[in-house]
Amino acid sequence: MSDTLSIVLFSGTADKLHAAATLAAGAAAMDRPVNILLQYWALDAFRSERVETDQGLAFDAGAPGRSRPVAGAASIPWLETFRMAKELGEVSILACAGSLEVLGIDATTLDPLVDDSGGIATFLMAAEGGQVLFI
Amino acid sequence: MSDTLSIVLFSGTADKLHAAATLAAGAAAMDRPVNILLQYWALDAFRSERVETDQGLAFDAGAPGRSRPVAGAASIPWLETFRMAKELGEVSILACAGSLEVLGIDATTLDPLVDDSGGIATFLMAAEGGQVLFI
Amino acid sequence: MSDTLSIVLFSGTADKLHAAATLAAGAAAMDRPVNILLQYWALDAFRSERVETDQGLAFDAGAPGRSRPVAGAASIPWLETFRMAKELGEVSILACAGSLEVLGIDATTLDPLVDDSGGIATFLMAAEGGQVLFI
Repeated sequence: MSDTLSIVLFSGTADKLHAAATLAAGAAAMDRPVNILLQYWALDAFRSERVETDQGLAFDAGAPGRSRPVAGAASIPWLETFRMAKELGEVSILACAGSLEVLGIDATTLDPLVDDSGGIATFLMAAEGGQVLFI
Repeated sequence: MSDTLSIVLFSGTADKLHAAATLAAGAAAMDRPVNILLQYWALDAFRSERVETDQGLAFDAGAPGRSRPVAGAASIPWLETFRMAKELGEVSILACAGSLEVLGIDATTLDPLVDDSGGIATFLMAAEGGQVLFI
Repeated sequence: MSDTLSIVLFSGTADKLHAAATLAAGAAAMDRPVNILLQYWALDAFRSERVETDQGLAFDAGAPGRSRPVAGAASIPWLETFRMAKELGEVSILACAGSLEVLGIDATTLDPLVDDSGGIATFLMAAEGGQVLFI
């Protein structure tokens, strides 16, 4: 069995991006390779002109009586945690070619944390025999 | 280790259904068996009278400044991609018996792409030793 | 390969909590250890003062023409299903230390179904070599 942790990262809100980043950083700190495929709203969140802005919270945050992030949603350090993950270990971040096309995003406008673009087949091959999450 | 890809498909928006379908098609193209359990809103999306309608987009799509699907949300080819996946390989789509009951859906009103209904135990046994995603 | 089923439980709506609980109960009934990490809105749902209230439904439920839970959203027995899962087998529910901090939640205010708090590393180690879901 492979110890690679693979993540299809679809969601674009700060809380879910943060959850993905902390899992990536945790795995990298354990010397596990990490393989991330950015789809749809996560891909959109990594556009250079958007990456530093407030990505908001998941729908679940809006229900009455919910706790709120103590320091505000904009303070959730998802981008810094991805940067740290890449410093800690072997973390590859791929833009999904199909999602680039559906959303009309040019891969050259993405943040430099994104290593390359590729398709599902490339992702599934890198994920082979290891744990996979959809976030 | 089993090379079956198993997906608990819970979400009912076109973008997440499409993400699931492309993963299923990609795995089927690699000759991997695919095992899908439809729960809640994904199950609802497969009702015959709903399956061809616009399923909308995930909550994340609504944040200010987001990219939009170039050809519109209704154009996201999730159903065609599931059809293609089933033509490419061994893809089983099961309606979750518990979700049928919670939502009061009669299994005979589902699209013919759905092969059968079954419970969590059936799904977990088919998934044994392979990769599992919750979408 | 380990037969532990691990779940990062992030979502806090009754339907997704129920999906997680039924998977946990199904795995426990098959004598598989279950390892759950509560993050963000799932963690918030387990606060003692909130756990018995209506947690609402996922965003997907709100689209026009959707089926509705026959007995109402408040009737979805997610908490009872988690209780049953713990009676059926070895089910550990951990509060994510990072999410406790982000949301300013004191671990002593959580429902007694939550066994302990811990970090990502603890979770990933318990999950090693088994199936993992993000819900």
